[in-house]
Amino acid sequence: MGLEAEALAVPHPYWPRDLELRRYVPNDRPTWHSLSFLFSASAALLTLTWLAAGWRGWTGAPMRTGRRLAICWFAICGFIHGVIEGWFSLYHTEIPGDQCFLSQLWKEYAKGDSRYVIEDNFTVCMETITAWAWGPLSLWTVLAFLQRQPHRYVLQLVVSLGQLYGDVLYFYTEYREGFAHSEMWHPLYFWFYFVFMNALWIIIPSILLLDAWGHLSAAQRALDAVKAKKH
Amino acid sequence: MGLEAEALAVPHPYWPRDLELRRYVPNDRPTWHSLSFLFSASAALLTLTWLAAGWRGWTGAPMRTGRRLAICWFAICGFIHGVIEGWFSLYHTEIPGDQCFLSQLWKEYAKGDSRYVIEDNFTVCMETITAWAWGPLSLWTVLAFLQRQPHRYVLQLVVSLGQLYGDVLYFYTEYREGFAHSEMWHPLYFWFYFVFMNALWIIIPSILLLDAWGHLSAAQRALDAVKAKKH
Repeated sequence: MGLEAEALAVPHPYWPRDLELRRYVPNDRPTWHSLSFLFSASAALLTLTWLAAGWRGWTGAPMRTGRRLAICWFAICGFIHGVIEGWFSLYHTEIPGDQCFLSQLWKEYAKGDSRYVIEDNFTVCMETITAWAWGPLSLWTVLAFLQRQPHRYVLQLVVSLGQLYGDVLYFYTEYREGFAHSEMWHPLYFWFYFVFMNALWIIIPSILLLDAWGHLSAAQRALDAVKAKKH
Repeated sequence: MGLEAEALAVPHPYWPRDLELRRYVPNDRPTWHSLSFLFSASAALLTLTWLAAGWRGWTGAPMRTGRRLAICWFAICGFIHGVIEGWFSLYHTEIPGDQCFLSQLWKEYAKGDSRYVIEDNFTVCMETITAWAWGPLSLWTVLAFLQRQPHRYVLQLVVSLGQLYGDVLYFYTEYREGFAHSEMWHPLYFWFYFVFMNALWIIIPSILLLDAWGHLSAAQRALDAVKAKKH
């Protein structure tokens, strides 16, 4: 590292501690602003979608609790992928020095994974695909289930597999780098932000993938049986 | 770069030209060995699978040309993912200095993408998932179609989306690095190895994804219609 670079690098809370950031402005909002925005927006969406899914006017048929919860999940995914990750996809170069609300949310999250403030190549690519592909497709999945469209389980499978693969790569690349971009074992930054928040997108998509697999295979089995009778 | 590192770095045919490799042994087999192995093994698999798919003993029903070709594709994918990419997944650290047949194949391919001789983190992760997930699942897809298993189109969808997402990330990460790991516009290395060989895994999975989508939606539509009649 030359003297010039040393002079330009600024102090920051990210890991590894010798990471060089040229532009970084500490958040001027407290952490609970970001967290309460994320969780209250998700809770509001969950409630609205829960009520929408309960309305009999869509198809006339009542919906089971598990299915209603799955639809709520896709609504929350549409919001997080489209808005929060969409922001990262568009403004990842400005985030470290920016004070917009969503930039502050990302600067806070980056304490658990500094790849979000260094424009890490894989992270930008994966997040961009998540925002622009799985985001809109999540919302389409919500609509597809509300209207009982015939491709509703195909959409559930596509979105869930996309989320699962992206997240496995996200953990796997960081595992191979020795979890260098986080303060290992830190209860909030490592365990909650990095491990728990991302583990959700391993566990829930895995369940929904198996659920879609079961429904689609059952439909194909029924169609095969009808065709076999005709022959 | 220190004097010591300069002394340790060895000359090589990869891009960017200032890339430092510590261990690199040039191939002692001619290029056509690798290429003819790849294409003749694929052709042999195609022929065998084509014949196997034509055998009426499986389900009694004849199979259309397009479906037989799709099954052949998954057999070739099983071989390429499982054997060739499986080798990379296991031996990526040794490949630059190794003279095993498959290591020589990878050293040759790396002229079109040097990420394969520098243990690039994303490349290793993506290839490992391709080898150990999409490889076995490709072979299961072959079997699922031969035996007309009810989840055959679900498997086609899963494998195709996995291949497509992995390949989109593969191109996208390299695009964002300015195609630095290849000699841009080189007819063999850039256009054939890097662009064409990988474009196959964008085009064919996209077609098969839409095909699976159509079949699964049709099956779900038929089942929904039966259930609606019963109510």
